[in-house]
Amino acid sequence: MKPLILITNDDGVTAKGLRALDEVAMEFGDVVVMAPEYNASGLSHSITSSRPLRVREVKQAEGLSVYCCDGTPVDCVKLAVEYFCPRRPDVVLSGINHGSNSSINVLYSGTMGAVIEATALGMDAIGFSLLHHSPDADFTPCLPFVRQIIGNTLERGLPQGVSLNVNIPRLPASEIKGIRICHEARAQWNDSFEKRVDPQGRPYWWLTGKFVCDNPPETSDEWALRNGYVSVVPIHPDFTHYSAIEELEDQYR
Amino acid sequence: MKPLILITNDDGVTAKGLRALDEVAMEFGDVVVMAPEYNASGLSHSITSSRPLRVREVKQAEGLSVYCCDGTPVDCVKLAVEYFCPRRPDVVLSGINHGSNSSINVLYSGTMGAVIEATALGMDAIGFSLLHHSPDADFTPCLPFVRQIIGNTLERGLPQGVSLNVNIPRLPASEIKGIRICHEARAQWNDSFEKRVDPQGRPYWWLTGKFVCDNPPETSDEWALRNGYVSVVPIHPDFTHYSAIEELEDQYR
Repeated sequence: MKPLILITNDDGVTAKGLRALDEVAMEFGDVVVMAPEYNASGLSHSITSSRPLRVREVKQAEGLSVYCCDGTPVDCVKLAVEYFCPRRPDVVLSGINHGSNSSINVLYSGTMGAVIEATALGMDAIGFSLLHHSPDADFTPCLPFVRQIIGNTLERGLPQGVSLNVNIPRLPASEIKGIRICHEARAQWNDSFEKRVDPQGRPYWWLTGKFVCDNPPETSDEWALRNGYVSVVPIHPDFTHYSAIEELEDQYR
Repeated sequence: MKPLILITNDDGVTAKGLRALDEVAMEFGDVVVMAPEYNASGLSHSITSSRPLRVREVKQAEGLSVYCCDGTPVDCVKLAVEYFCPRRPDVVLSGINHGSNSSINVLYSGTMGAVIEATALGMDAIGFSLLHHSPDADFTPCLPFVRQIIGNTLERGLPQGVSLNVNIPRLPASEIKGIRICHEARAQWNDSFEKRVDPQGRPYWWLTGKFVCDNPPETSDEWALRNGYVSVVPIHPDFTHYSAIEELEDQYR
């Protein structure tokens, strides 16, 4: 039987990056897409509990079913696996995101929320992001790497409980130097909000921010991306800082 | 100078658990509260970028300033640190949440999203949750542990880059056996959505789910909570699965 591939994203069902990912995935198996109806960027691992979800069928073709719903990327994964996939997916893909999800951006990312949810549910999962925010970004240079990583994952599987956060630099394919396995770079977003005043003289605050990641180590995703490599970070749905356990045990003994 | 303590939550500014936390925190220093105006449970690490935020001043008293905004818990931390704290907070607290944030629930939790954001911004941070969902939950049995953990953290600090996820069982204080330092238990939420049909005959899906965590190890938070202990999990804002890096390097060599 052909592999079954579930795809979602956080830019919404009409995003160009989603279509690029569909097309590569269809080379490998049957594809079910369940994507947010609207842009869901920055929704992280959110779930929708205060209202029910509606689903809309967008397309049915040979080897491709496309749906969208008014939920988050995590909702999309849960709902699709339970109600819209004919069998359990062999791999869950998310993206291709319009913009970076490297370093701590993974925390805010709906694209990566979906990946982490799929992992928690016991499936192999991969999130793809291109370092280019434009809705019209050219995803062509990404495709050979996307193809290689999907193929590798279907053939060899991922380590137990691990998923992949793949980021691709904004470069012509000929200038991308290859794939590097990395850890997340430490970073932070500073100057997060800009204060403005409305026409009635009342203040309001817009989210903005400056990404600060100075001198990332050569082993990190930020270094890889700045030096022309595709970064692949193995991630897992566990925030525990294991090596701090002993130090804290001393504090509470 | 007295310590400055920033407090937020995800149940909203009127939640009983927030007031309980304020009261303990005021024993240690000056308190600034910036909480979501509305319930923001399940918003995880979401940020609000599609619209600006408004802030409302709720209360000004000696040693206590309370504000709320129409953003997420992560927005609350960023906004408060930049615009509403007279200086950098010595510790950021979140909660006391009405309901568990143990195990993988930390992924979905707005309470813990705020804590992880504070950690990414370089501050000590602690999230507190009581295993009792009711809006009228009795937080009294929590308070000795909350007091001990805040005091310890202000006095000794946390390991670099580490924050705490504290969960408290729903038991009388006399039956709580003490504090255990743990790792997150592996678990998953199954049967996530319930399909229903509206009066017009159209389907809709409500989030529900069954928490599955069988035989959690004695070192895990779920074991601690089921056995009458307060669980304290050191967490950090890094999803990297470090020991998978080498295995993946073999796949991509």
